[in-house]
Amino acid sequence: MPLNKLVHELAKLPAVGEKTALRLALHILRQPAEYAQTLAKALQETIGSTRFCEGCGHLSSGARCSICRDPNRDSTIICVVEDVADLMAIEKTQSFCGHYHVLHGSLSPIDGIGPDQLRIKELLARFAAPEPPTEIILATNPDVNGDATALYLSRLLKQRGVSVTRLASGLPIGGHIEYIDQSTLARAFERRAAF
Amino acid sequence: MPLNKLVHELAKLPAVGEKTALRLALHILRQPAEYAQTLAKALQETIGSTRFCEGCGHLSSGARCSICRDPNRDSTIICVVEDVADLMAIEKTQSFCGHYHVLHGSLSPIDGIGPDQLRIKELLARFAAPEPPTEIILATNPDVNGDATALYLSRLLKQRGVSVTRLASGLPIGGHIEYIDQSTLARAFERRAAF
Repeated sequence: MPLNKLVHELAKLPAVGEKTALRLALHILRQPAEYAQTLAKALQETIGSTRFCEGCGHLSSGARCSICRDPNRDSTIICVVEDVADLMAIEKTQSFCGHYHVLHGSLSPIDGIGPDQLRIKELLARFAAPEPPTEIILATNPDVNGDATALYLSRLLKQRGVSVTRLASGLPIGGHIEYIDQSTLARAFERRAAF
Repeated sequence: MPLNKLVHELAKLPAVGEKTALRLALHILRQPAEYAQTLAKALQETIGSTRFCEGCGHLSSGARCSICRDPNRDSTIICVVEDVADLMAIEKTQSFCGHYHVLHGSLSPIDGIGPDQLRIKELLARFAAPEPPTEIILATNPDVNGDATALYLSRLLKQRGVSVTRLASGLPIGGHIEYIDQSTLARAFERRAAF
């Protein structure tokens, strides 16, 4: 039955189980047939036209992405992120005008993800560029895997004599101290700065 | 950019916002290209081959679904459900061998869904069959909209002199009284039965 096949394929998406997949499939069936056709076409076109930048690992239509090709951006500062979605979130802030490096994951021994599964070799290769990086900003997630990845990278990179920094942790802007989790609040105390 | 188009289309799915849609699209991009192709094909094949049964509203490859065509099932007992997913859940229990009627929704004035938006006309039309229904089991969800739908249908159907029943509410099997919500517990007391 084609529906079962569709449910089976949808259930492979992250955070989509069999029940959610069935709900999505039934929703699609209730829409006008054009929706499924448009979605199918969007899938095929995206896959056909999008690849990953050979330099930084960002999405790209060619060998190099638009950020790596932008002459106005500083290629000597590299911001290391776990995922393309993180890169996009940082780009939205318009507060960074260097280059990126997407690891496509974080160290997670429990899932069998070690340094070889991440784009770390490619990061080190960037030191062979005509203008090698002078600062590496580690913007991995502030969780167990992200912290482990940052620690691993900082050790590796400091041997290269490059300045290694990490994004600040602390109170989220607009947050209420009453509702902030203990670890974040403790970190905000540790890292308190002169007013 | 094709990715934006894909994100836009994915975000139309239920419970999928822009952020989740982006996450899904990036996940698809990280898979081998065959996955997107298979998913696109599954979408097209499902839409091309699946329709709704003219009798009960269940999924079908022809004018009548496999349940309506099954001579071993009792067409005089009709179980009314909100959705195809509910029908599938009931079928899995193997405890019902009558026919179904899928409303494709529930009464929800706040969303502009009144009796005309549901398959109620089609339900009444089933009384014109050679063997008209003798019992209608209302298996709408035990929530505000489902209860309202059941109440509306029970008034409409009792005029036809048919027996109208509703699925029992009470303690879920394997549940712990300590953790059961107040309304369910109160209902279990109201509907207590001789041991």
